[in-house]
Amino acid sequence: MSSAPATRAEAEALDAADPLREARAAFVLTDGVTYLDGHSLGPATHGAQARIADAVARGWSQRLIRSWNDAGDGAGWIDLPSRVGARIARLIGVAPDEVIVADSVSMNLFKLAGAALDICATRAVIVEGDEFPTDQYMAEGLCALADARFIRTPPGGGGGALVETGGVLVKSVVSYRSAAVADIAALEAAARARGGAVVWDLSHATGVLDVALARHGARLAAGCTYKYLNGGPGAPAFVHVCGDVADRLRNPLSGWMGHAAPFDFAAPYAPAGGVLRFAAGTPPVLSLAALDGALDALDGVDVARLEAKARLLGDICLARAEAMGLESISPPAGRRRGGHVSLRHENGYAVVQALIAAGVIADFRAPDLMRFGFSPLYVRHVDVWDAMDRLERILETRAWDVEAFYRRAAVT
Amino acid sequence: MSSAPATRAEAEALDAADPLREARAAFVLTDGVTYLDGHSLGPATHGAQARIADAVARGWSQRLIRSWNDAGDGAGWIDLPSRVGARIARLIGVAPDEVIVADSVSMNLFKLAGAALDICATRAVIVEGDEFPTDQYMAEGLCALADARFIRTPPGGGGGALVETGGVLVKSVVSYRSAAVADIAALEAAARARGGAVVWDLSHATGVLDVALARHGARLAAGCTYKYLNGGPGAPAFVHVCGDVADRLRNPLSGWMGHAAPFDFAAPYAPAGGVLRFAAGTPPVLSLAALDGALDALDGVDVARLEAKARLLGDICLARAEAMGLESISPPAGRRRGGHVSLRHENGYAVVQALIAAGVIADFRAPDLMRFGFSPLYVRHVDVWDAMDRLERILETRAWDVEAFYRRAAVT
Repeated sequence: MSSAPATRAEAEALDAADPLREARAAFVLTDGVTYLDGHSLGPATHGAQARIADAVARGWSQRLIRSWNDAGDGAGWIDLPSRVGARIARLIGVAPDEVIVADSVSMNLFKLAGAALDICATRAVIVEGDEFPTDQYMAEGLCALADARFIRTPPGGGGGALVETGGVLVKSVVSYRSAAVADIAALEAAARARGGAVVWDLSHATGVLDVALARHGARLAAGCTYKYLNGGPGAPAFVHVCGDVADRLRNPLSGWMGHAAPFDFAAPYAPAGGVLRFAAGTPPVLSLAALDGALDALDGVDVARLEAKARLLGDICLARAEAMGLESISPPAGRRRGGHVSLRHENGYAVVQALIAAGVIADFRAPDLMRFGFSPLYVRHVDVWDAMDRLERILETRAWDVEAFYRRAAVT
Repeated sequence: MSSAPATRAEAEALDAADPLREARAAFVLTDGVTYLDGHSLGPATHGAQARIADAVARGWSQRLIRSWNDAGDGAGWIDLPSRVGARIARLIGVAPDEVIVADSVSMNLFKLAGAALDICATRAVIVEGDEFPTDQYMAEGLCALADARFIRTPPGGGGGALVETGGVLVKSVVSYRSAAVADIAALEAAARARGGAVVWDLSHATGVLDVALARHGARLAAGCTYKYLNGGPGAPAFVHVCGDVADRLRNPLSGWMGHAAPFDFAAPYAPAGGVLRFAAGTPPVLSLAALDGALDALDGVDVARLEAKARLLGDICLARAEAMGLESISPPAGRRRGGHVSLRHENGYAVVQALIAAGVIADFRAPDLMRFGFSPLYVRHVDVWDAMDRLERILETRAWDVEAFYRRAAVT
């Protein structure tokens, strides 16, 4: 099923025919650097740079407090969380008014899992043992506070536990390690059958995978905006709650921005309608402005096209890795996967350092995983080809083995 | 006790002798605008502008993922929460390693009150009925989730409820309405006597009041950085936990950044030592960078001096208001108070709009409060004098009464 190019010329041809080839111009890229770490931190775009400069120079410095309600030119900060949320909604396949931007992924998972406890058959939160750490940690903290049962299953055991208990499963759509893709529809069906719920973590999925949440029956999700959405370091996260269920949910982190009328200063707490109740404190406007600008790069881009290109880029990596004898823990060429590929090497850390020194930025996850991220908006087919050339040379020459280098260079 | 000037010339003389007069140069101010809303959103400084521009152009755009660990020139993002926290620590009178920057005030109040439940005699959270709304709402949400008792007392009833129950009191040091200052030492003594705890909200205090937390026995606090610290719209908040108690506390919002070794990706959750365990998700780096730059304006500034000047500025306002026959709900001239003064006017909203149109930015809180904020770093004595002149003119001419204006102007 894979159509990975067999030569550099074929990779070049794919770039020439790439319907996404013009998206690259939106990014601030450094000559001589191939950035394959967009699954960790997306690069800056010219749009994000311009938007944050404007938020500082005009919004904050000139308009000051008035910017909260500035109307007309769309600069009203108070609406930023829902305006930016609506832009993300399209990318995850839900209605524009079902997403807001707020807080961090960790906080949003807590809100959603905490809220879901109230509507589930059992007060239990389930995570799998290889789930992203913060998802596990937040679930632990929630259960301790809410006196709910905490269930950590072996990898892949989430669905079974969901059927057994009818609790809340917190689950990544794309594994941060392998980039394997969860079966959203199947797990949602399992949840529904037993009165349970799934809180989806879209961190490694949004902007690179056509998750189509509504189509697959997903109702609750949170995700990261600084990876494939390129929102900037620590850009605030998003929350999605399906309109059908939102008004039955209580946000346990019930801050004033999620109140029905925040500026009435009235008690007790009365939640806003829909997903808006999942806002909490004052949002970090400057970071939010950068994210807003970054999303320009995704305007009008078809999500299925992003997924297809990312998969092909990954296929190139996998084909070349196989030729080098490297083991992959990611779904094989031609199969659905997130935007990255993880290759095993016992000296993975040193190899990644050598790659970075050679101008290819990838990352490393203990104990032995080298992760290569293929953000389809700015990574070209030929970039992957050339990066794999460098990897091959580093492995052949053992350029990563600094100690051996100094041994060879020693006179005595 | 008040030494408010009796003439504009006296106000000018105070400015000439003001030891803080040079601090104003750090701020980006607009000619013809007197900004008396720093209790809501502090203005930009040149330092903040430069720092965020650098974080975007160099940190994010050029160094990319490497910025998380960049060392040497202090650009390592991973340490920003504690480095910026240490700068705030001096301003609130605690040790540098007892403060971190993280999340919003709402979230940090939840973390602290949730953690305090474990060490208090009673699982109850107390708020006063005139407490800032988000403090009340977060306490409600916490109690609902943690099955703790929620107690809302009449204004001023927090201390009594604390003695009665031995629960957790969430309390502002400076009232957002009146600017009245709480007696930290007395409430801490009440808490200690009955095994309770106080979580202090320093939002309207930090940067304008010498709160001296350690000296008064305060152990838990959170606060806002976008008011008198001028960190920028929605800048992340801070958390303080006294070193003596930190390691006995469990952060219920236990995200990966508060883990002892976040990048080991190990489960179960193991908290970092001290206040670091109150970090949670990935911090909004760009907003945090702006805050870091903004704090330059407070470097070397004596907090007692800030408080003294803010009080005198407020005294000018109060003396002039009294002459105009306006009622104040703030502590009287010469008395300790936060950085703002609240004056009553039945048409307060319209009067504030007229003031803004005349170049004096203040704000309004329903039903009838006009709030004037006197941030001592950039507000001059003469600014307050002139602003009160404008207020006086607006009241005399009923310039706020737009309807009457059109009635008078109408031909028919």
